[in-house]
Amino acid sequence: ILKSLKRIGNFWVKAKNIATSDPRKVIHGVKVGMALSLVSLFYYMRPLYDGVGGNAMWAVMTVVVAFEYSVGATIAKSFNRASATILAGSIGVGVHWIANQCGEELEPVILQASVTILAAVATFSRFIPSVKARFDYGVMIFILTFSFVSVSGYRVEKLLELARNRVSTIAIGTSICIFTSMLFYPVWAGNELHNLVYKNLERLADSLDGCVTEYFKDSKEDRGRKHEGYKFVLNSKAGEEVMANMARWEPPHGRFKFRHPWKQYLKVGATMRSCAYCIETLSGFINSEVQAPELLKKHMKEVCMTLSSSSSNVLKELATTTKTMTKSTKTHLFVQEMNFAVQSFKNAFKDLSKQALLLTEHEAGEEKSTEGTKTIPIMAIFPIATMATLLIEITERVESIVTE
Amino acid sequence: ILKSLKRIGNFWVKAKNIATSDPRKVIHGVKVGMALSLVSLFYYMRPLYDGVGGNAMWAVMTVVVAFEYSVGATIAKSFNRASATILAGSIGVGVHWIANQCGEELEPVILQASVTILAAVATFSRFIPSVKARFDYGVMIFILTFSFVSVSGYRVEKLLELARNRVSTIAIGTSICIFTSMLFYPVWAGNELHNLVYKNLERLADSLDGCVTEYFKDSKEDRGRKHEGYKFVLNSKAGEEVMANMARWEPPHGRFKFRHPWKQYLKVGATMRSCAYCIETLSGFINSEVQAPELLKKHMKEVCMTLSSSSSNVLKELATTTKTMTKSTKTHLFVQEMNFAVQSFKNAFKDLSKQALLLTEHEAGEEKSTEGTKTIPIMAIFPIATMATLLIEITERVESIVTE
Repeated sequence: ILKSLKRIGNFWVKAKNIATSDPRKVIHGVKVGMALSLVSLFYYMRPLYDGVGGNAMWAVMTVVVAFEYSVGATIAKSFNRASATILAGSIGVGVHWIANQCGEELEPVILQASVTILAAVATFSRFIPSVKARFDYGVMIFILTFSFVSVSGYRVEKLLELARNRVSTIAIGTSICIFTSMLFYPVWAGNELHNLVYKNLERLADSLDGCVTEYFKDSKEDRGRKHEGYKFVLNSKAGEEVMANMARWEPPHGRFKFRHPWKQYLKVGATMRSCAYCIETLSGFINSEVQAPELLKKHMKEVCMTLSSSSSNVLKELATTTKTMTKSTKTHLFVQEMNFAVQSFKNAFKDLSKQALLLTEHEAGEEKSTEGTKTIPIMAIFPIATMATLLIEITERVESIVTE
Repeated sequence: ILKSLKRIGNFWVKAKNIATSDPRKVIHGVKVGMALSLVSLFYYMRPLYDGVGGNAMWAVMTVVVAFEYSVGATIAKSFNRASATILAGSIGVGVHWIANQCGEELEPVILQASVTILAAVATFSRFIPSVKARFDYGVMIFILTFSFVSVSGYRVEKLLELARNRVSTIAIGTSICIFTSMLFYPVWAGNELHNLVYKNLERLADSLDGCVTEYFKDSKEDRGRKHEGYKFVLNSKAGEEVMANMARWEPPHGRFKFRHPWKQYLKVGATMRSCAYCIETLSGFINSEVQAPELLKKHMKEVCMTLSSSSSNVLKELATTTKTMTKSTKTHLFVQEMNFAVQSFKNAFKDLSKQALLLTEHEAGEEKSTEGTKTIPIMAIFPIATMATLLIEITERVESIVTE
């Protein structure tokens, strides 16, 4: 009993942490509750009520199923639900009419066959990536509605009236969903994506800084987890894709105009990830067993620090330009600074190789295996540079849209 | 018109590709069609039929919604649906009874409040990771059923009879789902996960080989995409997690006993990914502008090739041991071989640094910036070695479970 009490306690603490770290999630819960009570109020007050399984149920179901965390997702689901219901309903009525014309014996056979075939084809279509990304839910509703129409149609002849009712309840449900999600503390998928991207840029800059500083630290003890932000970047691909998909459904809001280039964010995300891979490799060296001799470390410290701080400056600058969606002339300046740092790093390296001639054999050997750790920052600079140029292009594009 | 025809053509080609590359997806479609026609047959033949919105609908809905690609996912959804309906139904009846005792005026207020509060709490609980991973669908069904009971309960007094009907239809729906998915060409999530993991191991080995061979190739032209397998490994995290989650729901099947350590696969996946990051960095050098002088390349070719082939041998051996779920003594042998290769690589490096003293200054400078490209294989060996030891442990564990 104590164990299970402890478990519940842990669970409670976890829930509280989530609630305090992102209060919008609590608000979302409240919003769903509100939308549901709105729908049920609507149906309590309506004089015409036709028993369980009637219309109220469909409106309630629409709200529960279609209400999602972000506005874009809610609109996407509502649209999917409404259009799939209408499409499947009309095809269902059509098939039903044809089956009816064929006589009583053939009717059930035709209906059964059509359900089986359409369900099989529609289910298969959910595996096609473009359908899956946008209409997965719609296809499910299509199968559902079509089966309903066929199964029920066999006995009941008032299909059209039923269809009208279904459409009106779904319209009520979806409009309640969309308005509640848009009017009370809306969570825009586009905004989330935007924030994620610029925060990831900042995270990258911080972990690049953190990695290099940590490497050149004297004491080994306080090697903390300060530079782990890049790990978040590594795993944010799926999230970015979902959000970009949802953002396309959203109406213009805030600083985001209609047809905002959401796909650009995915490209930035991809370059950020390739950058994060480099940082991952770099941070592997920090905990690696092969460590550079102290002398060499001191020698190279300054150049390395300049290099990493100049490139993290570029990243930070890009983060702010993305955040404010403006083009800043500073970006070019920082990029130039970074390129300059790369050059001076290369020069320092050449100098070092001359000095290396004076070292004893043993030291020389050790120095070699060390240089691997040193050259990484040069190498890490390539993707950053690529990314920087790409990002500048993107911020330019974003800016051109903002000023439009 | 031509454009849209072309689009449809493209779409058709895509669909055909998916169908030919994985015919199980087509079979899945057929299975859904079969399950649906089974359910509707069941209801056509049943003499008692109570109009649209009756029981048939719920069974159909259960099949459409709960039938998933893998057996584990189907069982998980069915279990979620059944238990959530029962739980929400009983709580709903309880709340309804309490509200009834409080008099006619308070009744709607209590019902409304309970719907709002429970919906808000339940929606919030979907954000808690442990709930999200396992009971996301169940919580949704809970909200749905509870709202139904509350909304409908206000007018209809035959809740208990309704509940019995609902439970029986869901039982019919879920059992049809589970049996169809398990008996006809079942797709086991556990099996899929297992295949994914050992194929990823093979992919890693191939791309490691490919990268290094490509680097030492003479001609620059035919640098193909042969070593891109690691990119698949980079992005397989989400898939692995979903499958491990689903696999836990599955009954023992094939070579997988009850309580197979699915979480081990996630650990292997994580180490594989860290290995893939290294290969990503390594492959960056292949396309990098800074290239080693030919002389040096030739000098180092053999050692590098031995090193990479010995480590990819370890990976391949691990892939086969994972595939067959046996412990092979060869693994230790290959690991020893790899460690030996690391040693000889290091020695070759020391020799090289001695020779470097004889090179001219310019060459020496260039050589330095080259060594970054060379040391990567050493560095790449660390995660591989870690992974190897970890994997040996895992294959041992797997084996101990297999022989149990």
